[in-house]
Amino acid sequence: MTQSKTVGITMGDPSGVGPEVICKALARLDYAHRSKTLVIGELLFLVRANQLLGTDLQFGNSLTSHAAGMIPVVDIGSEHSDDVLPGKVSAAGGEIAYRCIERAVELYRKRSIDVIVTAPLNKEALHKAGHHFDGHTGLLTYLTGAEQSFMLLTSEKLSTVHVTTHVSMREAVTRITQQRVLATIRAGDTHLKQMGIKEPRIAVAGLNPHCGEGGIFGREDIEQIMPAVDAARDEGMWVAGPIPGDTVFYRAVTGEFDLVVSQYHDQGHAPAKLLAFDTTVNVSLGLPIRRTSVDHGTAFDIAWTGKADHGNMLHALDYARRWARATTNLMRPENSDAKP
Amino acid sequence: MTQSKTVGITMGDPSGVGPEVICKALARLDYAHRSKTLVIGELLFLVRANQLLGTDLQFGNSLTSHAAGMIPVVDIGSEHSDDVLPGKVSAAGGEIAYRCIERAVELYRKRSIDVIVTAPLNKEALHKAGHHFDGHTGLLTYLTGAEQSFMLLTSEKLSTVHVTTHVSMREAVTRITQQRVLATIRAGDTHLKQMGIKEPRIAVAGLNPHCGEGGIFGREDIEQIMPAVDAARDEGMWVAGPIPGDTVFYRAVTGEFDLVVSQYHDQGHAPAKLLAFDTTVNVSLGLPIRRTSVDHGTAFDIAWTGKADHGNMLHALDYARRWARATTNLMRPENSDAKP
Repeated sequence: MTQSKTVGITMGDPSGVGPEVICKALARLDYAHRSKTLVIGELLFLVRANQLLGTDLQFGNSLTSHAAGMIPVVDIGSEHSDDVLPGKVSAAGGEIAYRCIERAVELYRKRSIDVIVTAPLNKEALHKAGHHFDGHTGLLTYLTGAEQSFMLLTSEKLSTVHVTTHVSMREAVTRITQQRVLATIRAGDTHLKQMGIKEPRIAVAGLNPHCGEGGIFGREDIEQIMPAVDAARDEGMWVAGPIPGDTVFYRAVTGEFDLVVSQYHDQGHAPAKLLAFDTTVNVSLGLPIRRTSVDHGTAFDIAWTGKADHGNMLHALDYARRWARATTNLMRPENSDAKP
Repeated sequence: MTQSKTVGITMGDPSGVGPEVICKALARLDYAHRSKTLVIGELLFLVRANQLLGTDLQFGNSLTSHAAGMIPVVDIGSEHSDDVLPGKVSAAGGEIAYRCIERAVELYRKRSIDVIVTAPLNKEALHKAGHHFDGHTGLLTYLTGAEQSFMLLTSEKLSTVHVTTHVSMREAVTRITQQRVLATIRAGDTHLKQMGIKEPRIAVAGLNPHCGEGGIFGREDIEQIMPAVDAARDEGMWVAGPIPGDTVFYRAVTGEFDLVVSQYHDQGHAPAKLLAFDTTVNVSLGLPIRRTSVDHGTAFDIAWTGKADHGNMLHALDYARRWARATTNLMRPENSDAKP
């Protein structure tokens, strides 16, 4: 069992840009970081991407391959690799992406890795393979037996965690409850403290225009969000809000807050992408494992052309390493007498 | 009747920063612009602001005062000026703000002014005075007998027009109909053409995350927004969308679109404020009159301290002048045989 911090990258759907951004990013890592990184995927696709890109990587199939200067690949052993075509949705691609995550969680449990970094999967392919999850986060929540999780987007410019994500606006409005808002504030506060901010300054965005203008434009800000802010303050957290959704991000960017709690997907995603399109990392909070991700999709339109940019993967790897160093292992290992 | 383009500035609620930003902005105008500007308000408050700020303006009470180097003030004649206190909500302040707008519309009808620029009013004060409108836009819609209006926010960096504005998110979701989306696209297209863009490139933002991801996260993008986009294209407009709300603004800023149609208040306001907090101008479309506005409120917390910044008022004035020059008078004058 390793005590040092090892990053496990999942390959994602091999029809997409995953293998390419992984190879490009690995080629940019210095020796110290490369020797603490392994890939969970299928060797075939990584070798192909390596050839396509001329990245000159050497892959090994043992967790100790690092010693020989190679990058270990934990092969997930798909039987349907031939059904995977570049840029095409397929059950085979979805199944491979699923198995990468499943194996990654196993490795995390065994403490072979300390943090998971995911390359993108395709939701439609995942469903075709019979795995009906709303993407990585739902899948990881299920595989780790977690009760809930929270999506954090973070960059040098802005960090924002979401109360709701992949639901319709109609549905989001009903899911923004005091309980869920409070849980989101707590998850954000806990994470920022793990990352070294002693007293995170958290702003909670309102739902309705002008936070409902005293209830004229909706009462959720008064009845659900405000009580959650009050409760968080009672627990000793530094929390401001609700603050109108049209000014809270501006104020955060000028340095007033460390984190914005967004009520719905686009509320947080639009500013994050506007401010830091290429450098924003997706981080899962509330799970018993650490996981970061690129903030882009499978990009089927440019897959296997060599055009995909690996900058976002480098940021996801960097954040993962910093997180793993900053905190002790979150999940107790199975079949191990190690103390967490 | 003047053929040149005259700007009428309404003073707004005198408890707020209106008189101050007006005096500061007027002091910055060169002679040519000053001589085409008048103020609709109450002389008392303008004189007080002028003294407070030391802006050395001379006010006259005739529309021809310009000739003597003075700025004409159309006095709305309130009887309750003494009830107005700095930074306090009052029925008197709301009544004065109301009368400024009422008089401005009269002057516009008579062609004494070609465009209205509004300083902020306070909604609560307006209601206290018995005028139950959701602010300037609702008031102007009523006073001009318009059927509908659309809020455009515009700056050098981003222009966005809103399908819905001052309603709860719960209500907004039901108001985003094919008809209203199409009307918003048309209003934006018409305006940009007036402003000299021959074929405006318009992007329509989606409502739900990932535009509903094929209907999994809500069907409004498919059932209401997409048909409106198709209909607008059938009418010959250049329209793209729906485009996910988290990337459409990024794409617009990189130069791909001239205008974004936002579905709800914060969707458009958050990026506008993030990108151009001080320079974004609020423009009313769909009315039979031209009106621009500062994009800030009465700022009661700093009113009558001399601290209010007039930069936004200068931008509102500049846009108003350009709009008035670019187009012929929109509303037919009453009691006039002039051709529009």
